Amino acid sequence: VDNPHDLIAIVGATLIDGNGGAPINDSVILIEGKRIAAIADRTLQIPNQAQQIAAHGKFVIPGLIDAHVWSLDGTIPTVLIRHEGRYEELVIEAAQLTLKNGVTTLFDGWGPRDVLIKARNAIQSGRVIGSRIYCSGNWIGLGGPFSSDLRQQYRTAVYGSFATRIDALWESGVGPRLIAMSPQQVRQEIRTYLRSGVDYLSYAASDHHIGALRFIVFSPRVQHIIVDEAHRAGLPACGFRPATGEAIYLALEAGVDVLQFPDYTAYQPLPEETIALMAQRQIPCLIEAMTNETVEHVRKVAPPEFLLDILVSNNQALVRAGVPLLLGTAGFVIGADNTELRAVFTLGKTTKILGDGHFVWFEAMQDMGMKPMTMLMAATRDVAQAYKVDKDLGTLERGKLADLLILERSPLEKAENYRSLSLVMKEGRVIDRDALPITRLLTA
Amino acid sequence: VDNPHDLIAIVGATLIDGNGGAPINDSVILIEGKRIAAIADRTLQIPNQAQQIAAHGKFVIPGLIDAHVWSLDGTIPTVLIRHEGRYEELVIEAAQLTLKNGVTTLFDGWGPRDVLIKARNAIQSGRVIGSRIYCSGNWIGLGGPFSSDLRQQYRTAVYGSFATRIDALWESGVGPRLIAMSPQQVRQEIRTYLRSGVDYLSYAASDHHIGALRFIVFSPRVQHIIVDEAHRAGLPACGFRPATGEAIYLALEAGVDVLQFPDYTAYQPLPEETIALMAQRQIPCLIEAMTNETVEHVRKVAPPEFLLDILVSNNQALVRAGVPLLLGTAGFVIGADNTELRAVFTLGKTTKILGDGHFVWFEAMQDMGMKPMTMLMAATRDVAQAYKVDKDLGTLERGKLADLLILERSPLEKAENYRSLSLVMKEGRVIDRDALPITRLLTA
Amino acid sequence: VDNPHDLIAIVGATLIDGNGGAPINDSVILIEGKRIAAIADRTLQIPNQAQQIAAHGKFVIPGLIDAHVWSLDGTIPTVLIRHEGRYEELVIEAAQLTLKNGVTTLFDGWGPRDVLIKARNAIQSGRVIGSRIYCSGNWIGLGGPFSSDLRQQYRTAVYGSFATRIDALWESGVGPRLIAMSPQQVRQEIRTYLRSGVDYLSYAASDHHIGALRFIVFSPRVQHIIVDEAHRAGLPACGFRPATGEAIYLALEAGVDVLQFPDYTAYQPLPEETIALMAQRQIPCLIEAMTNETVEHVRKVAPPEFLLDILVSNNQALVRAGVPLLLGTAGFVIGADNTELRAVFTLGKTTKILGDGHFVWFEAMQDMGMKPMTMLMAATRDVAQAYKVDKDLGTLERGKLADLLILERSPLEKAENYRSLSLVMKEGRVIDRDALPITRLLTA
Amino acid sequence: VDNPHDLIAIVGATLIDGNGGAPINDSVILIEGKRIAAIADRTLQIPNQAQQIAAHGKFVIPGLIDAHVWSLDGTIPTVLIRHEGRYEELVIEAAQLTLKNGVTTLFDGWGPRDVLIKARNAIQSGRVIGSRIYCSGNWIGLGGPFSSDLRQQYRTAVYGSFATRIDALWESGVGPRLIAMSPQQVRQEIRTYLRSGVDYLSYAASDHHIGALRFIVFSPRVQHIIVDEAHRAGLPACGFRPATGEAIYLALEAGVDVLQFPDYTAYQPLPEETIALMAQRQIPCLIEAMTNETVEHVRKVAPPEFLLDILVSNNQALVRAGVPLLLGTAGFVIGADNTELRAVFTLGKTTKILGDGHFVWFEAMQDMGMKPMTMLMAATRDVAQAYKVDKDLGTLERGKLADLLILERSPLEKAENYRSLSLVMKEGRVIDRDALPITRLLTA
Repeated sequence: VDNPHDLIAIVGATLIDGNGGAPINDSVILIEGKRIAAIADRTLQIPNQAQQIAAHGKFVIPGLIDAHVWSLDGTIPTVLIRHEGRYEELVIEAAQLTLKNGVTTLFDGWGPRDVLIKARNAIQSGRVIGSRIYCSGNWIGLGGPFSSDLRQQYRTAVYGSFATRIDALWESGVGPRLIAMSPQQVRQEIRTYLRSGVDYLSYAASDHHIGALRFIVFSPRVQHIIVDEAHRAGLPACGFRPATGEAIYLALEAGVDVLQFPDYTAYQPLPEETIALMAQRQIPCLIEAMTNETVEHVRKVAPPEFLLDILVSNNQALVRAGVPLLLGTAGFVIGADNTELRAVFTLGKTTKILGDGHFVWFEAMQDMGMKPMTMLMAATRDVAQAYKVDKDLGTLERGKLADLLILERSPLEKAENYRSLSLVMKEGRVIDRDALPITRLLTA
Repeated sequence: VDNPHDLIAIVGATLIDGNGGAPINDSVILIEGKRIAAIADRTLQIPNQAQQIAAHGKFVIPGLIDAHVWSLDGTIPTVLIRHEGRYEELVIEAAQLTLKNGVTTLFDGWGPRDVLIKARNAIQSGRVIGSRIYCSGNWIGLGGPFSSDLRQQYRTAVYGSFATRIDALWESGVGPRLIAMSPQQVRQEIRTYLRSGVDYLSYAASDHHIGALRFIVFSPRVQHIIVDEAHRAGLPACGFRPATGEAIYLALEAGVDVLQFPDYTAYQPLPEETIALMAQRQIPCLIEAMTNETVEHVRKVAPPEFLLDILVSNNQALVRAGVPLLLGTAGFVIGADNTELRAVFTLGKTTKILGDGHFVWFEAMQDMGMKPMTMLMAATRDVAQAYKVDKDLGTLERGKLADLLILERSPLEKAENYRSLSLVMKEGRVIDRDALPITRLLTA
Repeated sequence: VDNPHDLIAIVGATLIDGNGGAPINDSVILIEGKRIAAIADRTLQIPNQAQQIAAHGKFVIPGLIDAHVWSLDGTIPTVLIRHEGRYEELVIEAAQLTLKNGVTTLFDGWGPRDVLIKARNAIQSGRVIGSRIYCSGNWIGLGGPFSSDLRQQYRTAVYGSFATRIDALWESGVGPRLIAMSPQQVRQEIRTYLRSGVDYLSYAASDHHIGALRFIVFSPRVQHIIVDEAHRAGLPACGFRPATGEAIYLALEAGVDVLQFPDYTAYQPLPEETIALMAQRQIPCLIEAMTNETVEHVRKVAPPEFLLDILVSNNQALVRAGVPLLLGTAGFVIGADNTELRAVFTLGKTTKILGDGHFVWFEAMQDMGMKPMTMLMAATRDVAQAYKVDKDLGTLERGKLADLLILERSPLEKAENYRSLSLVMKEGRVIDRDALPITRLLTA
Repeated sequence: VDNPHDLIAIVGATLIDGNGGAPINDSVILIEGKRIAAIADRTLQIPNQAQQIAAHGKFVIPGLIDAHVWSLDGTIPTVLIRHEGRYEELVIEAAQLTLKNGVTTLFDGWGPRDVLIKARNAIQSGRVIGSRIYCSGNWIGLGGPFSSDLRQQYRTAVYGSFATRIDALWESGVGPRLIAMSPQQVRQEIRTYLRSGVDYLSYAASDHHIGALRFIVFSPRVQHIIVDEAHRAGLPACGFRPATGEAIYLALEAGVDVLQFPDYTAYQPLPEETIALMAQRQIPCLIEAMTNETVEHVRKVAPPEFLLDILVSNNQALVRAGVPLLLGTAGFVIGADNTELRAVFTLGKTTKILGDGHFVWFEAMQDMGMKPMTMLMAATRDVAQAYKVDKDLGTLERGKLADLLILERSPLEKAENYRSLSLVMKEGRVIDRDALPITRLLTA
């Protein structure tokens, strides 16, 4: 090893490796190149040429993994119009904002497939810096940003030609038309889609149509096909936002690896038998995490169609039943001049503000009664396992990629301590956090 | 038999009995009380006390059975408001309008259960005159007239308290909330609903939400439960308006007896394999029947969201494949002062005008290539069989109820000849057509 | 005088005659037929045949005159639909509800002219009982209930043919089309309108278009013509809801006798010079009267487009400047089953509930600092003078019509005491308050 | 004169100077620097150093002056969003597009004042090329692009903060709030506005509120103040879009110099007396000019709320009565990718497409019966006089600025010949038409 930067030793920290065991005090972590070469207590002989990072009294944890972000949010027309042609830069800006704040890996849960793949590749190749991205592209079966599944009401304002162009970019061939196809036709479309190089699939487990949000989108045999094709390609599959117990049942039967937001249910809380089924299957879920304070705030300002009590009731039941939950923020970058959304979101803490939302997630889950070590694993190892990337990611172990954080205070003591972040390392490289984000289209 | 009216002989007509065999020329039909006592050629000795109806040169066919009407349409707020408290009378008015025009039996496919049952019973008991009614009440899983499944946009105008009251009357406990229930809960609700005395069930095979119309409402196992409960009660079950090939597949798998309007499909015509499946299963269907002239007219005036080409393509495919189709008009009474709807509907012939629409249905099916005898059976025997009431209805046979029509000209010659109606008999009684409708709230 | 009922003496009450002078204690009021024959202290010799009404310790005041009600409100479609053909009965029901509660005369400020005139005549002729009605019909220049000036959004729900019919009934030939006419054409239309027998005119001093509410409707010369034609016919003219200082200026210049609701101004409170002009001219005004409690309530629930602070500021300025204000409630009958409006209105006291609103008016004006005697005159004599009916009405004086109330407690002590009503006399006849309203379409 | 380019002779053309006299055949026009040095027949001795432009058989006319364009249209949100910060460039692009097509001067009738002034100054100073701009900024009294006077329905889509920013840019302090001010306050606001350096004023003669378009915005005395302040500053004043005869009457009484679009009247055509008044006063007007073909086309596709028959009737009456009409297109740049508007506008010829619309105007006015020489003057001298810039512009006379066009075919022969444009000169400089527009944000 010639390059001294290729050998780094983090010395003296309390190590919490993500596997759930007892922390190792006064540890030494030896990193060679991109990977962890050794983990030991202070008896380890540190090579002379190693750059030493003194971390006495501090805490080392795996780099955080956010299981659901929108690197490029499609819901704000002015952003889409103003930056058309530069969406890849927006994605990179988002990935720099997250990396700066300790999220070394993110799973992008909704966006324009081809843009996301380009940005992912740019980061992966080292051409640009940013959190590692895994992306799924469109929610299979749903329409794009200006479709009746999202913001159709803006269609006239932005002119139909723009709306049509953007919708096509998002849908990438797996939009609502799949609903009307035969199972074999859907299989062909999914295969075509998978060839683009996405990292996982996410399909609509319930509808997302304006004002509906209660129906089943695909028949069971089509759901099976979607999941099956993902698995044949070695990729995980997610069911997005099932709105009823029956929708959850069908997604689980279809074999999904992750359930995204099963907590937004229509009309009533999830039936008891559904909660029991979820607990039994142990399929990881993403939920809407809210602190107690935020719940009280939302209760005051949310419109009646936002079924807060049902949401809270579902989440309490899921936590109580021991359904595995992952760190997932649905965070996106809110432009500096977007005073409306900023006003909405600063009224209560939210996971939705990318770069900050993952800290809020810990605080919310703490309020919801999740244990400190469970939370830490839910934000690292569990995500990696759920999405089948735990060979390289999720824990601090010899041979894994050296994605890690140094915190000033113990994350096991209280959730707020995740904010005491003092160092981010990704693939063995210490990140210059002050320089991020380098690209500043929205965060100016 | 003392009362001469209890014995009637129709003499000399060409008899087309609904079974599809060759017509019997110069027939004698002997009716005793409510039922057919004998059917023969002119060699039959007619009892002296029999009242004779000379029908030489005319044509006798079974009373028509409309497989889908809305005796009380819920889509016109002024009607619902003005006549609140008198809905039963509106149903009876509708049943008198149909009887006057040769429909001796109607299957009411959508309406307020309790009102319909009262009107049905009033007619059945003989207290009032009208077509025999079989009713299903609400489309299970869908909301009432002012819900987001129908005319939510009128909710403010009619005030929420009225809207809520009317919606509850229609939903009768089997509205959208069933979607969020567990299978066992749905089973209980269906059982409760069946105990009210409905004659068949109809459930949402696809959603009917404003602007959606493409999703699946119930999981397969819940669809099975709904159909199963109907069958346990000895009643038929219908799947209402499946919007995709997959929705049709699920309804067929669930065991429905009738598919209502599988021709309104989303995005694209029905997949070939769906058509093939429907032909193989031979489950009767209701479709939107349009004459060639109406198709051309609608092409000019319909908004683009009305997918005319898909509809026409589906119907051609269904006829070609030999899928059994039933007379079903979705007709309702349009008020004398409803100049708007009258203007819309007089632009092209439509099955929707109750009392006339069944005549249009024959003309439309003739244009679509259905054979005369097939049509006649589709409007009589096939409906009776589909809804399992063929023990008493649907054909002219000894022992069956004497529901029959006398036409001046042969219905097998051309469809328009159904309009040459000169006598309607229901349960052995000659109807005073000129007196109908007796109740005139809308038809004044 | 033979009939003992034709001679009545009210004996012993404190009399407040409406002229603003000191109350007369222990008074005797002698009523002969419909009119007041004498007013005196207890020294008056009461004729033997007179029916005596003992009122010692009580208070007699003139019958109240509400300067602005809507006997038939046009804003609730269900009412208009359900009772079409019976609107005259609705007006009479309203007039019975007001009479029961001490309003012996009402000025109907908006409604269908011909219906109102018929109801007015029925009451005037003695055929039915009710408050005396003076009516103006339509706001000249504005459209009917389903026009863009009011509830256009309900047009589709009620079907255009109904909406058109109702709008025409309200507009009575003096709707929005007048805006586009030449001055001479408008003069002809106004003359035609006046020949129908209305009692006064009310024209749009500002627009009432949905979301606009800031523009001038008629040019000054056309405003002059409207007022001039009213005056030529011996009738008063009102300017309805001027929304800016300039609109008020133009209405005053045109010579209006009453300004209706000049307090709802657009964008900002009335300019100081407008307040000064109104004070100088001393033209009576109707304003939105709110108790302090109601202001606080509205502040919490009103949408931002309801400019509460401007309204309150205007009203404080008008009271302070000594602009003459009249009792005017804009009250209407809210149906027993109209839970929505009842819910809205019971949250804060409002003048809008006919039969109760005039009591609220006194309480509101008391909160706004108006003096007790000024209020009493504003609700009796001042209205009569403003509308030029003070020859017969407004005060208790020899020769005037015997419209009077007996209160248990002094109205000069506190506003709430108007509620201590124990007897209502109209034209010399004691009203059987318990029997009212006799007609009960909405108040059932 | 050293620079040969400073002396140019156009030789041999038929000269139509804009004053309405007989054309001069075989003319010589001598241009020195920016101005016309001499106009003569061929006997004039052409200085040797003069650059000669041979124009035998061709036609020279004054540069066209469009009395109403929108250099920066505010109605298309995507344009406003995408190019925020570069609006000045959009204005310049528009002015280059018009100059390329023979419009040497344009009056910008609606836009963001400060942007327009900057662009105007850039062109006037010679820093950039383009048609000479005169601008008025906002329609006084009306709100900006996202206000209820224009496209409020887009407000949510573009987010309120953007909408508010853009509205303020357009309104420039003279928006709807002026309606609620006292006359003296309005005078102060107008003075402040005039100090910015606008070239003329345009105020709302009628409202422009969505769906209203029939009311008067300012009282007569406020209209007088607006016009008076313009005249004190030596500038003309225009009344924008009066919608009724009374609105026109008030604007004329207020002393406006130009009436913009008095032909869009509400409910009925202009009263005869209004037409007579307009003819008598001879105040120039802008109208919606449509070819016969376009009228027929619009008749087929326009929604009923577009009152085509009234518009056509008004325009026929105005032409017949001899009301002076000016070339005014209301043209704006339609982006290359704006397929929606392009589709709408290519269905029928329209004056609205900037760069082409002025040619359409001639064809339309020809169809409406205007005489060739009247048209030519209406597009040159009459505009200059109406806006009081005829000292330098509008005709070809010694001493005036050398703005002129060379046409291949005679414009007096038929309107289409204006399209035979072969040379554009502005201020003595031959324009390189092929190079325009240089700035290409929308016309790419």
